[in-house]
Amino acid sequence: MAVYTEVSNDDLERFVAEYDIGQVTSIKGIAEGVENSNYLMQTETGTFILTIYEKRVKPQDLPFFLGLMDHLAAAGIPCPTPIHGKDGQALRQVSGKPAAIVSFLDGVWPKGRTPSHCAELGKAVARMHVAGSGFEMRRPNDLRVTAWRPLFDSCRDGAEQVMPGLETEIAAELDHLEKMWPTDLPEGVIHADLFPDNVFFLGGKLSGIIDFYFACNDWFAYEIAICLNAWCFEPDHQFNVTKAKHLLSAYRRVRPFSDAELAVLPLLARGAAMRFLLTRLYDWLNRVDGALVRPKDPLEYFTKLKFHQGVTGPSAYGLD
Amino acid sequence: MAVYTEVSNDDLERFVAEYDIGQVTSIKGIAEGVENSNYLMQTETGTFILTIYEKRVKPQDLPFFLGLMDHLAAAGIPCPTPIHGKDGQALRQVSGKPAAIVSFLDGVWPKGRTPSHCAELGKAVARMHVAGSGFEMRRPNDLRVTAWRPLFDSCRDGAEQVMPGLETEIAAELDHLEKMWPTDLPEGVIHADLFPDNVFFLGGKLSGIIDFYFACNDWFAYEIAICLNAWCFEPDHQFNVTKAKHLLSAYRRVRPFSDAELAVLPLLARGAAMRFLLTRLYDWLNRVDGALVRPKDPLEYFTKLKFHQGVTGPSAYGLD
Repeated sequence: MAVYTEVSNDDLERFVAEYDIGQVTSIKGIAEGVENSNYLMQTETGTFILTIYEKRVKPQDLPFFLGLMDHLAAAGIPCPTPIHGKDGQALRQVSGKPAAIVSFLDGVWPKGRTPSHCAELGKAVARMHVAGSGFEMRRPNDLRVTAWRPLFDSCRDGAEQVMPGLETEIAAELDHLEKMWPTDLPEGVIHADLFPDNVFFLGGKLSGIIDFYFACNDWFAYEIAICLNAWCFEPDHQFNVTKAKHLLSAYRRVRPFSDAELAVLPLLARGAAMRFLLTRLYDWLNRVDGALVRPKDPLEYFTKLKFHQGVTGPSAYGLD
Repeated sequence: MAVYTEVSNDDLERFVAEYDIGQVTSIKGIAEGVENSNYLMQTETGTFILTIYEKRVKPQDLPFFLGLMDHLAAAGIPCPTPIHGKDGQALRQVSGKPAAIVSFLDGVWPKGRTPSHCAELGKAVARMHVAGSGFEMRRPNDLRVTAWRPLFDSCRDGAEQVMPGLETEIAAELDHLEKMWPTDLPEGVIHADLFPDNVFFLGGKLSGIIDFYFACNDWFAYEIAICLNAWCFEPDHQFNVTKAKHLLSAYRRVRPFSDAELAVLPLLARGAAMRFLLTRLYDWLNRVDGALVRPKDPLEYFTKLKFHQGVTGPSAYGLD
């Protein structure tokens, strides 16, 4: 959640005039999206989100993200729809930075998660995986297994400050993950950051999935592994198998798991925990002064990693 | 601009059910209002602002602020209107904290100020001063001249870190202000924080005044002195007499200045500059880790103070 860029009224007026959405009647910086500046903008014709892309997003990736949202929205996935300018382009510039306007989605992200939320999520994620199959562009996962070691090397000196013994634990786990990481699983477009604050609900039903700025081509089961980490632990970091069972059961009713996917799920869950442990550790040790964002506790993901290390098969996640 | 409190979905649902505004369809933390947590909330019946009052606002002051907004809105001043619950109460609680819902105002605050903005402001402020006359409650200005010395004492040790010589300069100016401060001027309810981000415009017209959480009983001319500081300097902190002339001329057409008010305006402008210099200095030296707010540069107000120190009469502000 961040607002880094202040847009002058003149710049905003010029920018919005490139679209067919009327005049701006209000604009508020919102505490949403870690990587970019986001504004809730009302115009004479409706409510929109204006996103200004800040330096952590690579400009060359933006056509993938916006194209994917176009593709998924057209396939009926409840995601933001990029608004195209009068010249047909969705990716534009405001105040010298890349920017886009997308449709506004109703709904509220769930601060507490129920098994029912997890089932709704599982169903929507499976539909999204299926719907992504016709999308032609490709983007590798910048945060895949091969990226973890360099990320760790860049912050291992600080790991011991965060927790004594953390450096050794991470090093050993990275050795294991690199050795055991599978080489071939069903793959396609994944969101790769399906945390609760990126998923909206309305009246108990999933109403929106937002923030596609980590989306990439990767294994479907890795997305599930991220969801297990992000949705199926309690606030005290205890694993809740009922939530996992609801998530996975709802998913497989839309897109069944292969045997290979089931077999490696515990390993992928360890990998997903490692990915968020490392990025949080990095962010924790490299806090940006002035950012409107509190860095998240990296040790939450260390606790989750320890849980998955003790899992011997998919039954721990509620699967038969 | 701040979002400090996370409200659980259950708490939010219970809270909103105390009003007659339908179910929540979306809620976003917004980067607005330094003192409180603010959310832009859409319900089945409209768009609202939910404010949760954090510790810098005294709960006993809230009936004054909300009552004033009720009073001014009823008098046609474009300010947020508190929404009253089904039991008639506007001041309520959510997640154990005082909270209120107010109407949403269209408009965009002006990142660049023109003389025309200043004229619109002057007219609206005068109308607000006149409209406040029937409001019965009273609240002293916590940040009046007698509060400046204790505030300075609490942060004078840090003043030299900010700028060598600043401590001596402030001490001398405080001596002068305390000695010369007038004792009797036309008074009433003032907003006391009329910075550009608290004033919305739409199509060049002033459409809203928000954030009444410094409002108090004080001299009308002191409010004008604050506006001179907040609106009539350029980004390089040079005074723009044209803007001041527009502000003051538009004001006096609605509410004429007394001779006494005109005579002390330069002194009040020095006082207003001192008030913001001191609170910014305090906030600068007492940055809250985790607050989603960047402290503002105190020296901006030192530069403004130096300008007003050189002013010998109201003609410097464009008045005949």
